[in-house]
Amino acid sequence: MQVEGLSINLATIREQCGFAEAVDICLKHGITSIAPWRDQVARAGLDEAVRIVKSNGIKLTGLCRGGFFPAANDADWQKNLDDNRRAIDEAAAFSADCLVLVVGGLPDSSKDIVAARKMVFDGIAAVLPHARAAGVKLAIEPLHPMYAADRACVNTLGQALDMCEQLGEDVGVAIDVYHVWWDPDLANQIARAGRMNRIFAHHICDWLVPTKDMLLDRGMMGDGVIDLKGIRRMVEAAGFFGAQEVEIFSAENWWKRPADEVIATCVERFRSCCQA
Amino acid sequence: MQVEGLSINLATIREQCGFAEAVDICLKHGITSIAPWRDQVARAGLDEAVRIVKSNGIKLTGLCRGGFFPAANDADWQKNLDDNRRAIDEAAAFSADCLVLVVGGLPDSSKDIVAARKMVFDGIAAVLPHARAAGVKLAIEPLHPMYAADRACVNTLGQALDMCEQLGEDVGVAIDVYHVWWDPDLANQIARAGRMNRIFAHHICDWLVPTKDMLLDRGMMGDGVIDLKGIRRMVEAAGFFGAQEVEIFSAENWWKRPADEVIATCVERFRSCCQA
Repeated sequence: MQVEGLSINLATIREQCGFAEAVDICLKHGITSIAPWRDQVARAGLDEAVRIVKSNGIKLTGLCRGGFFPAANDADWQKNLDDNRRAIDEAAAFSADCLVLVVGGLPDSSKDIVAARKMVFDGIAAVLPHARAAGVKLAIEPLHPMYAADRACVNTLGQALDMCEQLGEDVGVAIDVYHVWWDPDLANQIARAGRMNRIFAHHICDWLVPTKDMLLDRGMMGDGVIDLKGIRRMVEAAGFFGAQEVEIFSAENWWKRPADEVIATCVERFRSCCQA
Repeated sequence: MQVEGLSINLATIREQCGFAEAVDICLKHGITSIAPWRDQVARAGLDEAVRIVKSNGIKLTGLCRGGFFPAANDADWQKNLDDNRRAIDEAAAFSADCLVLVVGGLPDSSKDIVAARKMVFDGIAAVLPHARAAGVKLAIEPLHPMYAADRACVNTLGQALDMCEQLGEDVGVAIDVYHVWWDPDLANQIARAGRMNRIFAHHICDWLVPTKDMLLDRGMMGDGVIDLKGIRRMVEAAGFFGAQEVEIFSAENWWKRPADEVIATCVERFRSCCQA
């Protein structure tokens, strides 16, 4: 039986299996939407990964990831742009809904977050023509402020949407509950994203209390404090009815369990905790 | 020689020494402003702590802390308000510049952050008459969003100032660089806080890359990525010229060093990294 409205970000079972096996497990559980990471695709081989996706009627709710624009020097800057263009090409090969952008933090030991944000803007602007030519939408993923220094200096939905407004069509947002659930302006900004027609993805997991690791201790939906149904209601009221994509980094828990159990739990929790 | 403009939050050396010894070390280094925590005061005895402070001409840039308003039931709610009134009385005994409010997170296993925020507002409103009668200013400290669930559901300066506007006089903000440095709207909100005349405290430390612990891995000024001089310029441009208060929780580094070395380093880094 197909599970409508659920996508699995393959990072969720990255420690347990490679691309082909991950797809098989998703299909076994009736899931036909996925979001792979580029390193997972590279290990399988891009052509083979695309063949697996297309021959099984699978849809990509996103490819993870482009981004990491800020650079300490010109050579790195060009390298970053080139890598983003390759990521765009890969997203195009999959006909992915979007390329997710984790935009990058402070280059080297910079203390200038304003300059880093300018580089992010300039970097997206620089690769946007390539994305448009390839028919690939770019989804800025605002990351939780605890990642501002080392992963992404775009940290709120409002900030991301300000960028989208200036960049124009084909640049939108990936709304990941883990990163935005705390935002006092969340409801307003989701509604605004809807009016702009720029919601390209909706990622889910949960915020555990306590959180033991800043990167690798995300929770399964229902095990934490995020109002997942409430946020989904906001997202649907804003006009986005695409799949909810489960993305869980969990070094000490879910990555240590059999992938089949993890995906079965995702399906169960999606049904009990996530639908509007 | 007195060090003008520097205050030491005694949490910075809480593992090394008690109240009296901490004060002695500060005085030895020419520091006459401090901010103690209530548990440190309680261990010394309130009367004795007040005597030490007043007999040495010491000023409190704040007393830490009131807050933790959200409650799962009426009994806890009343207990929280009573505790805040006691904290206000202690701040008054010291003639502290303000009582710092770490407002609290989600009560029990609640997923309703909007309700928690309402409780924070109602709690401050409930104790505000007591604070005004005692001549104590209340400083809402917006905490980093990574503490939204378990420590403080007020997570941006803008959100705190919205509350201040509704609550009226004698409620302002403590601007701690660790909590707000990432905020894309930081410059605007500091300027706004200045126009409202509601900056009651300015706390400093640094954000380390990587940060190894969400609570106890704050950095010494200069060791991280925060633009301390830049933020101080914003704060002074907004009209606040009070002391910068060093508050470092550092289980694996600064709490393991001799208090004398820690305070000497605070003075040195204050001079080299923090002044506008």
